[in-house]
Amino acid sequence: MPIYVLGHTNPDSDSICAAISLSYLLKQIGKNSIASRQGECSDETKFILEKFGFEEPLLKKSYAGEDLFLVDFSDLNQAPADIDKANILGIVDHHKLGDITTPVPLECWIRPVGCTNTIIKEMFDYYGINIPEKLSAIMLCAILSDTVIYKSPTCTSLDIKISKELAKIAKINDIKALGMEMFMVKSSIKGASAKELITRDYKDFNMSSCKVGIGQLESVDLSIFKERKEELLQEMSRYKNEGERDCVLLLLTDIINEGSELLAVCEDDTIIEKAFGKKLKNSSIYLPGVLSRKKQVVPFLEKAYKG
Amino acid sequence: MPIYVLGHTNPDSDSICAAISLSYLLKQIGKNSIASRQGECSDETKFILEKFGFEEPLLKKSYAGEDLFLVDFSDLNQAPADIDKANILGIVDHHKLGDITTPVPLECWIRPVGCTNTIIKEMFDYYGINIPEKLSAIMLCAILSDTVIYKSPTCTSLDIKISKELAKIAKINDIKALGMEMFMVKSSIKGASAKELITRDYKDFNMSSCKVGIGQLESVDLSIFKERKEELLQEMSRYKNEGERDCVLLLLTDIINEGSELLAVCEDDTIIEKAFGKKLKNSSIYLPGVLSRKKQVVPFLEKAYKG
Repeated sequence: MPIYVLGHTNPDSDSICAAISLSYLLKQIGKNSIASRQGECSDETKFILEKFGFEEPLLKKSYAGEDLFLVDFSDLNQAPADIDKANILGIVDHHKLGDITTPVPLECWIRPVGCTNTIIKEMFDYYGINIPEKLSAIMLCAILSDTVIYKSPTCTSLDIKISKELAKIAKINDIKALGMEMFMVKSSIKGASAKELITRDYKDFNMSSCKVGIGQLESVDLSIFKERKEELLQEMSRYKNEGERDCVLLLLTDIINEGSELLAVCEDDTIIEKAFGKKLKNSSIYLPGVLSRKKQVVPFLEKAYKG
Repeated sequence: MPIYVLGHTNPDSDSICAAISLSYLLKQIGKNSIASRQGECSDETKFILEKFGFEEPLLKKSYAGEDLFLVDFSDLNQAPADIDKANILGIVDHHKLGDITTPVPLECWIRPVGCTNTIIKEMFDYYGINIPEKLSAIMLCAILSDTVIYKSPTCTSLDIKISKELAKIAKINDIKALGMEMFMVKSSIKGASAKELITRDYKDFNMSSCKVGIGQLESVDLSIFKERKEELLQEMSRYKNEGERDCVLLLLTDIINEGSELLAVCEDDTIIEKAFGKKLKNSSIYLPGVLSRKKQVVPFLEKAYKG
């Protein structure tokens, strides 16, 4: 019986590349394994896979009765709907510890670093398995994506050390040029609908029993969002009501000036003031220095929801 | 600010030795750390600490505002009452994934092996830190205790490999003799009250919102329990009602013949039949081959409670 390796719903580059790299590692240590995904790959992910010659993982949404390794999440609301009927053998993640529980012992490789693929590189070292050149390249891309080319406050010295080791294996000399190349693809909003933009890098969270959705778009220039702001807010409002969410947020992150405009559509706007100490104006506040949803947005919102 | 390293309420030898060994490791990698415990040490644990010259960890039950590393558990009902006000930096464990969650990223070293100290030995290797002779000895004792001298089905080849490495560092030639010496202390029921026996190695579990308590006593000879059975059942019944439990179980495990007598006091006895396929007779069933609460009792009960 194969072990399916899968990331969260609405996968980003880290969770797709982690499914591929971890499933390769599992095969090398004698375990039959299949990389899978719960949703569509982003343009950035497609670019990475195409550039280094990989297929997209298998699209699969139901996992009842299957053996699983989860990558890049430990929250039930980012899991397949039937996860309670699957056997979770392991979790590799770099986020806060979520509400997934298991009936039997498992293995968890969870570290407070910038990227799941950083941890998977350490797993390769632990098992003494060599990483093929092309696989090393997509693991590096995942780190560059998740750490915003090392600029995110989630980036640690271990992410930088390991990305250099991966670059060496992948024979990539100019790491930052590769990062910028990926970023141009990621930043593009041309031809994308408002819904596509909101959900491009989007996660639902359970905060004190309220469903809170947070999307993030990173760009080298926030002005590109200006003329689409009304359209984005309308779609966020629709998306909030459709999913019975308490709040839908969209972080527009300026990776050059290092800050984010936060768009927010909430049942009660005061939750944003409580979390960030500023009042919304036209459904928006600017948060200087904020680059990381995980480290600089989620904990403050969770605290505000707790009361 | 120090990091407190602590095991579950009602600590066993693994959780006490793990608090000591992990806090030593954290200090070696530059982190101020204090080993602590939530409850009294067992006679077996006292024997181990005394034999190799260690003090009992600090008794401390409240951790609001403190930084923590948890060892040997990830369940809220085995945690300090104010854990929601503490900062969990890490978890090292070998059980099923429990319901503890965190608001920020952390590190988890969780493996499906027989003992937390097996994982901590791997952490020493990861960080390249040498283990002192006496510390190595108590880590070895923890493995021998948790794996019932390698007899438990939870024991893996990694536990055996690592216990041999630890024995070498500790200059202990006869591992099994050390295990038997510990076991004679652990098995003794002389002078112990019924409550002491029930709670000697006891854990509460949350199963489908029901509180289920399971104690375990290991012995080389089950006949020593015969004349105290009525007394044990009466005390289990009292303990069940006092703690508003749905069920209190006591496993009397015969490590020579490899099986357990299960004593059970339940709101509804059919839950035991559902879990183990046998009807209770005088509040008791015999389970041949069953040595491990974690692997051979808890999963079946959880399944039965789920319906």
